[in-house]
Amino acid sequence: MSNDHHILSAFDRDLEAIQALLMRMGGLVEEAIREGARSLETRDVELAEIVRQNDKAIDELEERINHDVARVLALRAPAATDLRTVLTVLKISGNLERMGDYAKNMAKRTAILAELPAIDGAAGALRRMAVAVAGLLNDALDAYIHRNADLALAVRNRDQDVDQMYNTLFRDLLTHMMENPRMITASMHLHFIAKNVERMGDHATSIAEQVIYLVTGKLPDESRPKSDVISTLKPGAGA
Amino acid sequence: MSNDHHILSAFDRDLEAIQALLMRMGGLVEEAIREGARSLETRDVELAEIVRQNDKAIDELEERINHDVARVLALRAPAATDLRTVLTVLKISGNLERMGDYAKNMAKRTAILAELPAIDGAAGALRRMAVAVAGLLNDALDAYIHRNADLALAVRNRDQDVDQMYNTLFRDLLTHMMENPRMITASMHLHFIAKNVERMGDHATSIAEQVIYLVTGKLPDESRPKSDVISTLKPGAGA
Repeated sequence: MSNDHHILSAFDRDLEAIQALLMRMGGLVEEAIREGARSLETRDVELAEIVRQNDKAIDELEERINHDVARVLALRAPAATDLRTVLTVLKISGNLERMGDYAKNMAKRTAILAELPAIDGAAGALRRMAVAVAGLLNDALDAYIHRNADLALAVRNRDQDVDQMYNTLFRDLLTHMMENPRMITASMHLHFIAKNVERMGDHATSIAEQVIYLVTGKLPDESRPKSDVISTLKPGAGA
Repeated sequence: MSNDHHILSAFDRDLEAIQALLMRMGGLVEEAIREGARSLETRDVELAEIVRQNDKAIDELEERINHDVARVLALRAPAATDLRTVLTVLKISGNLERMGDYAKNMAKRTAILAELPAIDGAAGALRRMAVAVAGLLNDALDAYIHRNADLALAVRNRDQDVDQMYNTLFRDLLTHMMENPRMITASMHLHFIAKNVERMGDHATSIAEQVIYLVTGKLPDESRPKSDVISTLKPGAGA
């Protein structure tokens, strides 16, 4: 609406400041994912505690972003693309906050799993999954900053790899549980974590989809090929 | 800022229309939770399919709310409480969309569980949990419409009951798995669903907290007593 140069650049400055907070938040979440998974694999209870503590900073950044976005909306009354951008920031910070929560939850289980029998290969598989998700997040945020729809689309497609890793791990855990009831409790915890890492991947995908929407003005069609463990677990399902 | 009567009432009309969409969305989500759980308990695969199909309407409502909120922000440039209200609507519709997804996921597993051995009492316990969550959601939305912080606070406290129901069910499922490896696959599915119902309760709580923030201007302190199954599962944890 308002094409006054001064107003526009004031908005741009505000947006830049908010985006800097968003990137800082994204960096902290990425670190939490990587370190949370590392604490799990190395059974490093102290590192896990640091990850848990650091989640507070993530939550504070989200609150600050919410606050600053409300301020920009009230003060600058952005329209059209500017408005869409600000609302996208709001959604992305919500995604980041959830991912931070999942990372905290992963760290929380490190102390418990450290006292349970280890399950061959599971913690390593989880860490690889987490590293893949941290990579997705990194690229999704890059795609946001550079308004790069192609990169965002690639993130969306790569999320399938994470789903696949999850499916494999899920079946491994089931096998361990069937073969050795002593492994059931540890398997349940690991399975929880695996599901949460998979969900983090979904949030990274959601960020990528918002970037696609922001850049192209439309959402990618719904036919994202999602590897679905539910149907593969159906007894006797050959189809 | 703008105290022009005409502008104010135009905003109010817009807000009312958006709130009507939000309430319709809430009603659909509540139904999805109840019916999803009922389909699970009665092994009613057709009902489950209806729940899955209905999730599309929920997603469409969210998109429409997002769209209308952006329109109101652009057109009316609300400030202060009006702005806060609109941003709250946006957050609540996000919560509702997630809850709808969880309900759809629950329904999705009905067909699979219908072919697996039934676990005594588990589906009934799940349905009771789901009914409790649907009640929380109903009250949280009531609290929003009536700007009733007390009711919202009550919702927040009642979520503990859901957490408690989840903890009990989790332990029951563990026992079933340990005693009979044939029950492991069904238990894993039921456990998934239970965790998702518990998460729905968290979303209802999140709605309630937003209402508290909207009405009182501050978030309730962080000390929400959360029954936490993680620590209770710690081996040898007597404390």
